[in-house]
Amino acid sequence: MTELFNDAVWRGFASDNYAGIHPEVMEAIAAVNKGHQVAYGDDVVTEQFNEMIRSLFGEQAQGFPVFNGTGANVTALQSLTRSWEAVVCATSAHINADEGGAPEKVAGLKLHVIPVTDGKLTPELVPNEAHGFGNEHRAQPKVLSITQTTELGTVYSVAELKALVDQAHGLGMVVHLDGARISNAAAALGCTLREFTTDIGIDAVSLGATKNGALGAEAVVILNPAYADAVKYIRKSAMQLSSKMRFTSAQLLAMFNTDLYLRNANHSNAMASKLYHAVKDIPGIEISEEPQANALFPILPAQVTERLQRSFRFYVWNHLTGQVRWMCSWDTTEEDIEKFVAAIKSEMA
Amino acid sequence: MTELFNDAVWRGFASDNYAGIHPEVMEAIAAVNKGHQVAYGDDVVTEQFNEMIRSLFGEQAQGFPVFNGTGANVTALQSLTRSWEAVVCATSAHINADEGGAPEKVAGLKLHVIPVTDGKLTPELVPNEAHGFGNEHRAQPKVLSITQTTELGTVYSVAELKALVDQAHGLGMVVHLDGARISNAAAALGCTLREFTTDIGIDAVSLGATKNGALGAEAVVILNPAYADAVKYIRKSAMQLSSKMRFTSAQLLAMFNTDLYLRNANHSNAMASKLYHAVKDIPGIEISEEPQANALFPILPAQVTERLQRSFRFYVWNHLTGQVRWMCSWDTTEEDIEKFVAAIKSEMA
Amino acid sequence: MTELFNDAVWRGFASDNYAGIHPEVMEAIAAVNKGHQVAYGDDVVTEQFNEMIRSLFGEQAQGFPVFNGTGANVTALQSLTRSWEAVVCATSAHINADEGGAPEKVAGLKLHVIPVTDGKLTPELVPNEAHGFGNEHRAQPKVLSITQTTELGTVYSVAELKALVDQAHGLGMVVHLDGARISNAAAALGCTLREFTTDIGIDAVSLGATKNGALGAEAVVILNPAYADAVKYIRKSAMQLSSKMRFTSAQLLAMFNTDLYLRNANHSNAMASKLYHAVKDIPGIEISEEPQANALFPILPAQVTERLQRSFRFYVWNHLTGQVRWMCSWDTTEEDIEKFVAAIKSEMA
Amino acid sequence: MTELFNDAVWRGFASDNYAGIHPEVMEAIAAVNKGHQVAYGDDVVTEQFNEMIRSLFGEQAQGFPVFNGTGANVTALQSLTRSWEAVVCATSAHINADEGGAPEKVAGLKLHVIPVTDGKLTPELVPNEAHGFGNEHRAQPKVLSITQTTELGTVYSVAELKALVDQAHGLGMVVHLDGARISNAAAALGCTLREFTTDIGIDAVSLGATKNGALGAEAVVILNPAYADAVKYIRKSAMQLSSKMRFTSAQLLAMFNTDLYLRNANHSNAMASKLYHAVKDIPGIEISEEPQANALFPILPAQVTERLQRSFRFYVWNHLTGQVRWMCSWDTTEEDIEKFVAAIKSEMA
Repeated sequence: MTELFNDAVWRGFASDNYAGIHPEVMEAIAAVNKGHQVAYGDDVVTEQFNEMIRSLFGEQAQGFPVFNGTGANVTALQSLTRSWEAVVCATSAHINADEGGAPEKVAGLKLHVIPVTDGKLTPELVPNEAHGFGNEHRAQPKVLSITQTTELGTVYSVAELKALVDQAHGLGMVVHLDGARISNAAAALGCTLREFTTDIGIDAVSLGATKNGALGAEAVVILNPAYADAVKYIRKSAMQLSSKMRFTSAQLLAMFNTDLYLRNANHSNAMASKLYHAVKDIPGIEISEEPQANALFPILPAQVTERLQRSFRFYVWNHLTGQVRWMCSWDTTEEDIEKFVAAIKSEMA
Repeated sequence: MTELFNDAVWRGFASDNYAGIHPEVMEAIAAVNKGHQVAYGDDVVTEQFNEMIRSLFGEQAQGFPVFNGTGANVTALQSLTRSWEAVVCATSAHINADEGGAPEKVAGLKLHVIPVTDGKLTPELVPNEAHGFGNEHRAQPKVLSITQTTELGTVYSVAELKALVDQAHGLGMVVHLDGARISNAAAALGCTLREFTTDIGIDAVSLGATKNGALGAEAVVILNPAYADAVKYIRKSAMQLSSKMRFTSAQLLAMFNTDLYLRNANHSNAMASKLYHAVKDIPGIEISEEPQANALFPILPAQVTERLQRSFRFYVWNHLTGQVRWMCSWDTTEEDIEKFVAAIKSEMA
Repeated sequence: MTELFNDAVWRGFASDNYAGIHPEVMEAIAAVNKGHQVAYGDDVVTEQFNEMIRSLFGEQAQGFPVFNGTGANVTALQSLTRSWEAVVCATSAHINADEGGAPEKVAGLKLHVIPVTDGKLTPELVPNEAHGFGNEHRAQPKVLSITQTTELGTVYSVAELKALVDQAHGLGMVVHLDGARISNAAAALGCTLREFTTDIGIDAVSLGATKNGALGAEAVVILNPAYADAVKYIRKSAMQLSSKMRFTSAQLLAMFNTDLYLRNANHSNAMASKLYHAVKDIPGIEISEEPQANALFPILPAQVTERLQRSFRFYVWNHLTGQVRWMCSWDTTEEDIEKFVAAIKSEMA
Repeated sequence: MTELFNDAVWRGFASDNYAGIHPEVMEAIAAVNKGHQVAYGDDVVTEQFNEMIRSLFGEQAQGFPVFNGTGANVTALQSLTRSWEAVVCATSAHINADEGGAPEKVAGLKLHVIPVTDGKLTPELVPNEAHGFGNEHRAQPKVLSITQTTELGTVYSVAELKALVDQAHGLGMVVHLDGARISNAAAALGCTLREFTTDIGIDAVSLGATKNGALGAEAVVILNPAYADAVKYIRKSAMQLSSKMRFTSAQLLAMFNTDLYLRNANHSNAMASKLYHAVKDIPGIEISEEPQANALFPILPAQVTERLQRSFRFYVWNHLTGQVRWMCSWDTTEEDIEKFVAAIKSEMA
């Protein structure tokens, strides 16, 4: 296997999911691979994870390791809702656009979707779908779900998040934050995780580590204790309960109990910025603004995209406009950027 | 973390899920942690996994790595059914007794359950619940789900399995085999995996590796090609699609593309046998038969159980009878057995 | 249509669902067919229905008209549960055996089933499936669902019901009573509806009228106010909210706001008794006990059954034993019984 | 009951669901209320209904009576889909906006919604959400669901429907027509039902009768035989199988086996037109176009609306703009219109 695989080592800008495991995460997995541990989370590693969650998010916070981002989102959303309640989110939200209908199919959740252009909701947009309270003909809006950083690479400011939370709470709703790239947001904002979650009243978070250097580890973090009791049961019935949980908890500890989450996120954000500055003045490339986190969404001529994709993987975001997505990850190197920029320049020339 | 954890190294007989990761599996994970790989299964490691599945189960077989056993079972069962169809299984089946209602809650599956005493169904028992075909008042029996080795530690012979498959097929049903401990069955039967699956007409298998030494890796294996197209979609909506799938595939390759699955299973089976022979004649212990795989279900006096559990973890299976479960794992040592037997003898004296 | 249909007028003992609409119910429908009424239950007829429910079941009771028995059961059960909770019931319960998997498929409900022979659960049997509280591997037992009269034609005494309720409440569970034939039970017991529901602590009732002479009208009645808020939303999402609800409410008023429910049930019970006494001494018919309500379950020679079915419809209950079901309905006449008995005697001779 | 109720007779323009049962429908119910009939659809009335469906929609058509419109829609949509497939529809579609999340909660259906202003989709809009075929991250678009007449009172021409069907079929999808007001569309188009369903390739229809004068009767009509086998099972598990089905079938026969559906729809359409012409020139009322069917959506000053609602029920459609909905029904009289117009004129003066 190894040999065949070695030939296939390559680099690209397609997704932070294409990167591997950070060495510190690998070490953490190895470090807890000793003796027996109680399965399903009653182990000493998960105990440490629990402590870490309280330390990161406040004493009332409770964390629940799960396998992947869709699992974290659906487990969190189902824990926040009764069977007749619904979720308000942007049309571009991962839960609406990229989870294969898991919220609907696993949890029967209705999503009331709001079209946005940059991935960000505003308090003014929320009532467009958050209405009909008490009317049984409408699946009852209960959760406002927002993504930070958004699927379009943008970052909500703390004030913007606070305004959304206040709007939702004012409507009797709760707020879920999909933090698949929460570390990139913390890095971009220069904030602690707590400052843009617990401190502004967010009720539940999907805490992501996989894209930022884990093998596969996310967690549901419940900040509003009223909703915590449900999670252990829903995590199980949603098939997100790991038997050898110590290894998931160890990854999350390696990431968030040190500054690794910030180091990695600062790095991928910086690489995106470097790429931006290297390409923004190339004639024929349309790219409006400096990236807020680790993703760029430039517009390229279709033939250029096609030729570039032979050497560097990345996705076309919009076939009509020619917009593409370039994603930097924790393992993107300066050399990767330089080679890519050289190729872009050569193709554009 | 490491220091705190070191103090907690201990051994027990509670579950094969309490054991850690086999070194060869760890090596395989590390070996594929190089460069970028396409996410969600379009990587070179998963390509090798696919080849392995064909080599193990026949050219028509298709494999789909997933996170855990419940995920494998529910994804397989939903792939075999339409929304009105149902599953026939033993009351003691893991899908009925230990999955938190995931088949019902994630996939809307009705389980028609048949009481058994040793975990094993027979062709004669199947029609007790496999009836009402064409009658819409009855959720239509479509899948017979059996577990090998069973939740009670028993092993179906190839002939027994064949008779069940023939019965199910004769009724127009298909057969799913929950192979969370399929390696222990292969070891016990002295068969290849193919001899008691593909060769006798099994339609789908949950292929387990976690209990036998993986970090967390299982696969849905579809042997009846009529049902293969559904799986990729259902795996996604069932939240069992790993982004960095190369690491799941690598574990499965380490386990099944070598003889590791057999080495580990032969070992845990042998340890159970050793334990059996060491305790079977201790007065006061009721233990009927030699274990068929890696589990023993003896009956102990309640106070003995309680005192033993202070030093060695294991589960009480039946509080009324005093039956307990002792499970050996890939990492159970002869020394573990000796210490445990000594403690038992001391407590029974 | 009418002509063709007239030729088909016939009588049988297959089901109380084969009978038509009682004239008083037809009159009630016609009586409310005047002018406009607010749709979906905010009408004056449903207001009267609401008053009637409080008068029948106590001030705290709330009623919700629905279309059919399965709809009433699943709406009630889902209103009593969170997504991870489960229902304990007899294997023979309608919700398990005859609803096409609706509890699982519509509401994701896990049924923990207990085998019984006469349709009746006992407090001693309940813990066989009501266990594992707090253990997320087990769908959490929350509702005990019992049927009165049972699917086997038996009737729980008030004391038997009370003992089941006390057992369930003692375990932290609530009790649902499937009252598809609740009128036959009231008639058999000589009790008010309240005496064997509200007064002994039942939490929710499926109140059936269809089998006893309605066109199609049932209601969810919530006796435990803690669970009432959920119902209006669940009734809608379960597709059981009638637009022209006044016509459903009118049927329920015709049935339960007069003594029609008792008159009809007393009649069908009496017809079953008459049939019993007329056949019990016919040699070759095995019939153990006097019917408790409106159903008999005698055992006949298979050829006799077959020949009888050419003139009188009824169902074979058990093909192995030759047990059949004879059901009397509100419109069964003495003449029907006499003709049937004559035919039985002639076939048995 | 009757007395209390008589006082409450009133008229309004809120909904065609506020009207009662047409006398011919009542007669049909009474006509089949004779003797016993096999329950659950195996009766002679439903046999006639089946014939009628073939006669109306073609030999391959199969009809399945159900209780209500949501039941018809969800049963039809689930019959057309596998568990991973999804529905494309307008944001204003009843299935998205007014069914309490039933498609998601009962059938796990993902709705991919497209914003429209007049309730009508176009072939050009469909690919905005009908994309991602073969990509498991996207719930697979399988059904295009359109409503005729739309929720905004508009009517698709036959050519417009045909273009949508061709677009959907070209994408490998099937088409469901929500015909809650299909009779109003037939009346408006001057077409047979077949001309704008079977003849242009529609795959399934929700055939509505309730709003047009039935007590409560709708049907799933499957025109594409590939999807017919699923319906009987799904209707049962979706809790839409009537026990005394003869009474539902009789209503549908009364409506569609005569010209009643057209008479009633022509009448309500004509009443809407009359209302339009009577108010269109009243200063201060904004009303753009002649109604296409039986609904008007004028804009009124808020205080006028409020005062009018004291005597005539109708709904505010948009609180921001002051748009209201006036719906005419089969029982709207010329006198109703005249009284209403007089009140409007008086309030506007």
